[in-house]
Amino acid sequence: MGKSNLDLVKECDRFPYHQDDPAFYASHLQNYHALKVTGCDAVLGYILNSVVHKFPWPQGHWAIDAANRTVTLVTGPDATPAQRSAQVAQTLAEAVRQDTFQLLRGWRNEMYPVYGPGGEFLFEMERSATPLFGVVSYGVHATCYVDDGHSTGGGLRLWIPRRSRTKQTYPGMLDNSVAGGMSSHEKPFECLVREASEEASLPEEVTRANARAAGCVTYFYVRGANAGGETDLLQPEVEYIYDVKLGADVVLKPCDTEVEEFHLLSVEETQQALANGEFKPNCAVVLIDFFIRHGILTAENEPDFLEIQARIHRRLEFPTASHAMI
Amino acid sequence: MGKSNLDLVKECDRFPYHQDDPAFYASHLQNYHALKVTGCDAVLGYILNSVVHKFPWPQGHWAIDAANRTVTLVTGPDATPAQRSAQVAQTLAEAVRQDTFQLLRGWRNEMYPVYGPGGEFLFEMERSATPLFGVVSYGVHATCYVDDGHSTGGGLRLWIPRRSRTKQTYPGMLDNSVAGGMSSHEKPFECLVREASEEASLPEEVTRANARAAGCVTYFYVRGANAGGETDLLQPEVEYIYDVKLGADVVLKPCDTEVEEFHLLSVEETQQALANGEFKPNCAVVLIDFFIRHGILTAENEPDFLEIQARIHRRLEFPTASHAMI
Repeated sequence: MGKSNLDLVKECDRFPYHQDDPAFYASHLQNYHALKVTGCDAVLGYILNSVVHKFPWPQGHWAIDAANRTVTLVTGPDATPAQRSAQVAQTLAEAVRQDTFQLLRGWRNEMYPVYGPGGEFLFEMERSATPLFGVVSYGVHATCYVDDGHSTGGGLRLWIPRRSRTKQTYPGMLDNSVAGGMSSHEKPFECLVREASEEASLPEEVTRANARAAGCVTYFYVRGANAGGETDLLQPEVEYIYDVKLGADVVLKPCDTEVEEFHLLSVEETQQALANGEFKPNCAVVLIDFFIRHGILTAENEPDFLEIQARIHRRLEFPTASHAMI
Repeated sequence: MGKSNLDLVKECDRFPYHQDDPAFYASHLQNYHALKVTGCDAVLGYILNSVVHKFPWPQGHWAIDAANRTVTLVTGPDATPAQRSAQVAQTLAEAVRQDTFQLLRGWRNEMYPVYGPGGEFLFEMERSATPLFGVVSYGVHATCYVDDGHSTGGGLRLWIPRRSRTKQTYPGMLDNSVAGGMSSHEKPFECLVREASEEASLPEEVTRANARAAGCVTYFYVRGANAGGETDLLQPEVEYIYDVKLGADVVLKPCDTEVEEFHLLSVEETQQALANGEFKPNCAVVLIDFFIRHGILTAENEPDFLEIQARIHRRLEFPTASHAMI
């Protein structure tokens, strides 16, 4: 018996829901401190208590309230994003110097944004550190496919890459055609164009002509061992979704070292690989969303249809981005 | 200034979220009793306290627990769905006899299902009564459209009907091409085929050949004055979604008396009508979902993109259907 689609969704959307068991949810929250910044009421992420205790918080930059379990980035009332970001960077530099966290050994040199209510850009931090703070991270996922026109999916084949076996995270697992994290100040579509070129050798003009925005998936991931670094860290995520229908003449191939090889798989082959657990968890979620939008998974053939649809569009506890404003 | 897409979503998804304000949510729940049945732990719906007090509950069939705010349909431990349904029917018959609720004057003679955990069919009740119990109701919505092939939506036109001005609910408002409630034992696709024929004169073979399942939207509606009957009743809803791409030769026209006329509107005309508040609330949600899936609303042009996506796929507090099992 392979994994069901709901099993796959649950591997990705792992944080408990208040509505399922209010008492358990309340007690579970006691494992975390809430991340805040001066001047903003919103909780921006959940930090595992063990991380709070280990962190070499620089004096004066942070207020740790053990009773209320909050960690607040302390700044003047008129602090700019650059000032907040500098304080966070200084904090992380000290943690790296002391080698406090395994996670930071995978330093990416890439900045990820943190937003407040209304999509206000508050600050940015090194990508590899985001799970320490449990802040929302953003990415793009595209499913590249060819389709000879059968509406029920019979003629549809998907471009599926295998991750490099030497990659730090999820080595050797199957992935989505194009997937990547969004840095600060990047917008989803431009991120897609960049990643499609870098990861799949897809020329910019081909991506621009063929990619169609198709929504997003959101889920609340809890990192396990195969994510690399400390486990049980939180990673609430937003992935902007694109469908890229390609002609049979376009061939995806690796460009950088992240992908080993691309294969054109039928829907059945892809579903078998999903059931076998061969896909990176969040790629499974994106494919399930693709199959639902394309009429391949339906209320009549998927017993957990409604639970899946709700969980892959989870309303996160934290403020999120608004790319139309920036 | 017209209504934003998020304004439209909020008109439909009106029940508060725990995560937005736990204290307010907890106090708000005190306005309701939880609906339960013997032998099942799950809460099946929320009944407004004023409804609980007014209802002529037949002796012995119901247990009202004022302290815990529960209303339980009391049966033997091995009760069948038919036995539960008979008790509910008897209860409603008495309420009709006493003319207790305006809502029941709109008796539909149509049975709606109520499910327990795992999609177990527990009982059915008269459609018009479901908001009294706040149970989840199910329907199908299809967007029929023509598309000359512009991928960004420029060539896309949608078949939009106007509801009859004499209809009990939402008279004269714009609607979706095909929309209807699902009765007990009905499955989504067959419901669509029936409604498309009844409401839009779409021949069965045209619907079967052209309709593609495209997911669902879910939201927690609170009934206002234009829904008819008592206000503030709860109506958590699941709508199974279909896209029906039609050739330019197919013309939708009214068949029964529910629809006044059909028009083929451009995306811009449809969006203008949405902003003007001309659509029935849940039809707006379905169109917004359509525009997101078709790349017309994107993260770059819709400031509330993430909030909208999460709220139109709300994870309801109650058990829901599983049509793949029945």
